[in-house]
Amino acid sequence: RQKYSNEMYKAANLSGVAVGLAWTYVGGDILFIETSLSEGKGELRLTGNLGNVMKESASTALSYVQAHARNLGIDPAVFTKKNIHIHVPEGAVPKDGPSAGITMLSSLTSAFTGRRIKPYLAMTGEITLRGQVLPVGGIKEKILAAKRAGLKEVVLCWQNEKDIQEINPQYIKGLKFHYVREMDEVVEKVLQKGKNRDQVRVSGSADAR
Amino acid sequence: RQKYSNEMYKAANLSGVAVGLAWTYVGGDILFIETSLSEGKGELRLTGNLGNVMKESASTALSYVQAHARNLGIDPAVFTKKNIHIHVPEGAVPKDGPSAGITMLSSLTSAFTGRRIKPYLAMTGEITLRGQVLPVGGIKEKILAAKRAGLKEVVLCWQNEKDIQEINPQYIKGLKFHYVREMDEVVEKVLQKGKNRDQVRVSGSADAR
Amino acid sequence: RQKYSNEMYKAANLSGVAVGLAWTYVGGDILFIETSLSEGKGELRLTGNLGNVMKESASTALSYVQAHARNLGIDPAVFTKKNIHIHVPEGAVPKDGPSAGITMLSSLTSAFTGRRIKPYLAMTGEITLRGQVLPVGGIKEKILAAKRAGLKEVVLCWQNEKDIQEINPQYIKGLKFHYVREMDEVVEKVLQKGKNRDQVRVSGSADAR
Amino acid sequence: RQKYSNEMYKAANLSGVAVGLAWTYVGGDILFIETSLSEGKGELRLTGNLGNVMKESASTALSYVQAHARNLGIDPAVFTKKNIHIHVPEGAVPKDGPSAGITMLSSLTSAFTGRRIKPYLAMTGEITLRGQVLPVGGIKEKILAAKRAGLKEVVLCWQNEKDIQEINPQYIKGLKFHYVREMDEVVEKVLQKGKNRDQVRVSGSADAR
Amino acid sequence: RQKYSNEMYKAANLSGVAVGLAWTYVGGDILFIETSLSEGKGELRLTGNLGNVMKESASTALSYVQAHARNLGIDPAVFTKKNIHIHVPEGAVPKDGPSAGITMLSSLTSAFTGRRIKPYLAMTGEITLRGQVLPVGGIKEKILAAKRAGLKEVVLCWQNEKDIQEINPQYIKGLKFHYVREMDEVVEKVLQKGKNRDQVRVSGSADAR
Amino acid sequence: RQKYSNEMYKAANLSGVAVGLAWTYVGGDILFIETSLSEGKGELRLTGNLGNVMKESASTALSYVQAHARNLGIDPAVFTKKNIHIHVPEGAVPKDGPSAGITMLSSLTSAFTGRRIKPYLAMTGEITLRGQVLPVGGIKEKILAAKRAGLKEVVLCWQNEKDIQEINPQYIKGLKFHYVREMDEVVEKVLQKGKNRDQVRVSGSADAR
Ligand SMILES: [Ca+2]
Ligand SMILES: [Ca+2]
Ligand SMILES: [Ca+2]
Ligand SMILES: [Ca+2]
Ligand SMILES: [Ca+2]
Ligand SMILES: [Ca+2]
Ligand SMILES: [Ca+2]
Ligand SMILES: [Ca+2]
Ligand SMILES: [Ca+2]
Ligand SMILES: [Ca+2]
Ligand SMILES: [Ca+2]
Ligand SMILES: [Ca+2]
Repeated sequence: RQKYSNEMYKAANLSGVAVGLAWTYVGGDILFIETSLSEGKGELRLTGNLGNVMKESASTALSYVQAHARNLGIDPAVFTKKNIHIHVPEGAVPKDGPSAGITMLSSLTSAFTGRRIKPYLAMTGEITLRGQVLPVGGIKEKILAAKRAGLKEVVLCWQNEKDIQEINPQYIKGLKFHYVREMDEVVEKVLQKGKNRDQVRVSGSADAR
Repeated sequence: RQKYSNEMYKAANLSGVAVGLAWTYVGGDILFIETSLSEGKGELRLTGNLGNVMKESASTALSYVQAHARNLGIDPAVFTKKNIHIHVPEGAVPKDGPSAGITMLSSLTSAFTGRRIKPYLAMTGEITLRGQVLPVGGIKEKILAAKRAGLKEVVLCWQNEKDIQEINPQYIKGLKFHYVREMDEVVEKVLQKGKNRDQVRVSGSADAR
Repeated sequence: RQKYSNEMYKAANLSGVAVGLAWTYVGGDILFIETSLSEGKGELRLTGNLGNVMKESASTALSYVQAHARNLGIDPAVFTKKNIHIHVPEGAVPKDGPSAGITMLSSLTSAFTGRRIKPYLAMTGEITLRGQVLPVGGIKEKILAAKRAGLKEVVLCWQNEKDIQEINPQYIKGLKFHYVREMDEVVEKVLQKGKNRDQVRVSGSADAR
Repeated sequence: RQKYSNEMYKAANLSGVAVGLAWTYVGGDILFIETSLSEGKGELRLTGNLGNVMKESASTALSYVQAHARNLGIDPAVFTKKNIHIHVPEGAVPKDGPSAGITMLSSLTSAFTGRRIKPYLAMTGEITLRGQVLPVGGIKEKILAAKRAGLKEVVLCWQNEKDIQEINPQYIKGLKFHYVREMDEVVEKVLQKGKNRDQVRVSGSADAR
Repeated sequence: RQKYSNEMYKAANLSGVAVGLAWTYVGGDILFIETSLSEGKGELRLTGNLGNVMKESASTALSYVQAHARNLGIDPAVFTKKNIHIHVPEGAVPKDGPSAGITMLSSLTSAFTGRRIKPYLAMTGEITLRGQVLPVGGIKEKILAAKRAGLKEVVLCWQNEKDIQEINPQYIKGLKFHYVREMDEVVEKVLQKGKNRDQVRVSGSADAR
Repeated sequence: RQKYSNEMYKAANLSGVAVGLAWTYVGGDILFIETSLSEGKGELRLTGNLGNVMKESASTALSYVQAHARNLGIDPAVFTKKNIHIHVPEGAVPKDGPSAGITMLSSLTSAFTGRRIKPYLAMTGEITLRGQVLPVGGIKEKILAAKRAGLKEVVLCWQNEKDIQEINPQYIKGLKFHYVREMDEVVEKVLQKGKNRDQVRVSGSADAR
């Protein structure tokens, strides 16, 4: 029986929310990464029972977004005027490892730009500070979890393509894979064009809708 | 013999106080979540022998309240002018887990708006940063504790409805259940309309009663 | 042989000093809770080999005092102009648990108002942030320690009355018990009316003696 | 063979230096407590391989000095203009316990007033925040160490007098004992009247020598 | 099979990225050290599952760069206007030890000057605060990893020359070695002359391209 | 075979660098203590895999330098305008104990005054806050390490003279020993008169070269 209904994915379809694939002690699973902004001074709050490596992924994703703000369409002034909270639900389950990197990057970029993530799309991949996407482990279990949960597209590192080819094709029928090398490809593939209403605007800045 | 008398629930009926259901090493139990505001700079103080996951729930609830302040009828200026203390009595008992999420959200919202929580109502459910309510465990023990303590209504996640249906109906006769999917439903169901005297007002703001 | 002489209780009779009852590994004992204020910015310093639960009690007591400052006769400006130090003597003995709550509340209120605590009076009870007094354990051992030390009155939670009734009356002859439900009753019962010389005054405030 | 020569005690005879008695894993020993002030903002730095209880003694001593500054002849403005460093030499030896309390108080008061401590005088006793001196353990071993080191006077709590009376008088011939109840007696007994050259002066204050 | 393709080294060829040689529990390996700057106040953020000794190397490298900023062609004002993030990819692998010192120095200098590091060049060596390069262990395994990964030049301490001479020459055919004594030699050997587009400029400073 | 060549000692001959003697798990060894200053606000950064006692030595040395700045020829304004980094190379080797005290004092004083330390001179001794030098252990092993490394003079506490006298004189032929009691003797013996180019100057101060 499938835990997250279709309805749930629609609920997820707010800017700041991205779907990742994880490998926990119960096997492959899907993770929601949620980013929320509030008035503040640029503090980063991380919750959801995250281990140190996963917290470092969030920090790395944020530094990347800060260093490439203008390319991503983000006013850099926002980083000193908003607090950033990244939460990964199901607080009772410990989560760790670097494989949520591109999902965190996407969640942050979505929150800062107000552009929503494509529905029914999941991601897995480590990020580097210079913008590369690195391969991750547990691909088979993660992909089967994505399939079970009703997802339709998966973004992952080009070096994980070989792991997909080893899965029996009938198990993953209907799933579309996107192989990427760099973060700008991730952003391009997963963020939708239209902004939604809760776009971040730095108070006093002129660029109205 | 019942530990909390009716009198106790009346005492609880101040803004900032909400009743949760917990599952401790002695079985199901009820928890009071108390929020108090004082002049300050937005610090969050957490006491009551809380584990890390429960502290993260409080932090997540606060971020949700901050991000949705206007919808909840809260002047956002309050977050930089008040310190927030959330306490869970019975300091000798260690408490943990994400299931106090909606109770913390309700306690915070009640403290900030001055609207009291309905009497004889308890809640249990994890919250996410984007406003969803997630199911939690130990439902049977929690509900029986609520019944024993003389409570009359319980708010919980729609995905926990199946757990209620597995309880022998005569054990829960007279208890009314509210199943919710999102936090705005929680707020709508549990907060009373009338404000009480200790409503938070940011000094210098014009909106008198 | 009795450790604290009568002389000692007179010495204790300064504003900011309250007598609590504790249950340590050597059995029931009495504790002095001492609060001292000095010029500063509102920091709270806690010493005396206190465990986390006892530190949380101090924090909860302080939040209560801050939220009810005007009712307690305290100028709220004092909280940003004084540092607060709470010390529990006999630093070699580890102390923990929530039962010093009302003693800490009384010590703080006494220090801030300059009103002394009644002599030969001890207290024990957990506090909640909304102002309730909760029952605590080890009552028999604590009361016998109070008796041995020459104390004359004890304040405790109404829910601990049953524990007093189980003690052989001849062991507690001459001890007077006060059962309370809420913190304002504690303050009313234990603080004396007259202020002493070392009353706290915020520099620049007009209310001279 | 005696470790500290007479010459060493002369060297110790600077304001800010006091001699305590400790009980370490090698038996009774003498401790120098050194306080040094430098331009700063009131930070307290503690070094010398001190355990938590001993660090709390230093903090308690400092709060006492701050709260009674004027009585001790100290300009309270100094506490925000100087950093305070308390060091206990022989960094390789772990030290703990509350018995250095009155020595720390004396060292601090000496540093702030510029009044030197009497030579050949040692102290041992716990302090409380309201100014009492409490008894400590290991008296026999401490006193014998003081005797071996060539000290001539010892200040201790009146409740330790019974421990002195149990020592064979010929072992402590020539040692003079001062029994005290409160800290102001300690200060009166151990601090010399004359100020030395390195008295603390807050820049801009008018009271020249 | 070789993990990092040539294409990867081109991607690495951004200012702020340097290649180090490490000795992990799986044997010799290559490490990318990535430095990214963003608007801020001089904070240093370190990620990549680094142990304390490796974090200290980063701190030492930064102090060296700060103390020799002008010689390195860096405007010292930058240190209070930028946050610095050093990340070492493959977050799942714990990394420690001092041997990444010269690589961190090079990465930082490259990020601050905008000068790129020579492609196909790796480094290994501890740094001291006064500018010396110290020898490190595991040379044979590190060099073989560099060879396998397709690197062409290696910079290391002159005291490691003897370790190179013990390797069978046919295993390292085509690799060029640079032996250095001091950090200024490292900077001279590894940083290219041309600046690339993302050179750091402190806003308001006049030295345009 | 000797690890540090003469050439290395010349490199060491910069202001801020002092040579200590340590006793590590591999026996006696020499340590370089390096101090570097950069623009800042008086922070103290300590690196080199130092244990707590050794970190406390650095803190004690700094307090001494701050309290005696004018006697040492240091403008006290420098302490709020520079960050201080003390590093002890060979980060892979854990180091601890109080015996580097006088070496840290010398390194700091050298860095702040710009006066270099005499070449081929090593030191070992604990410091106290009031300026005394205390004896340390492991003298024989440390002295033999100094001899092996080609050093010519050693400064140590007068109470360690007896340990030198127990060493076979032919092992230490050519080594000159300086026995000291107080820190001002250390400074006088080890710091050279001439300042070198990198003397610390507080910007805006008038005393040009
Ligand atoms: Ca799940
Ligand atoms: Ca690209
Ligand atoms: Ca309970
Ligand atoms: Ca809704
Ligand atoms: Ca006691
Ligand atoms: Ca009442
Ligand atoms: Ca000793
Ligand atoms: Ca007195
Ligand atoms: Ca690798
Ligand atoms: Ca050079
Ligand atoms: Ca060595
Ligand atoms: Ca001298």
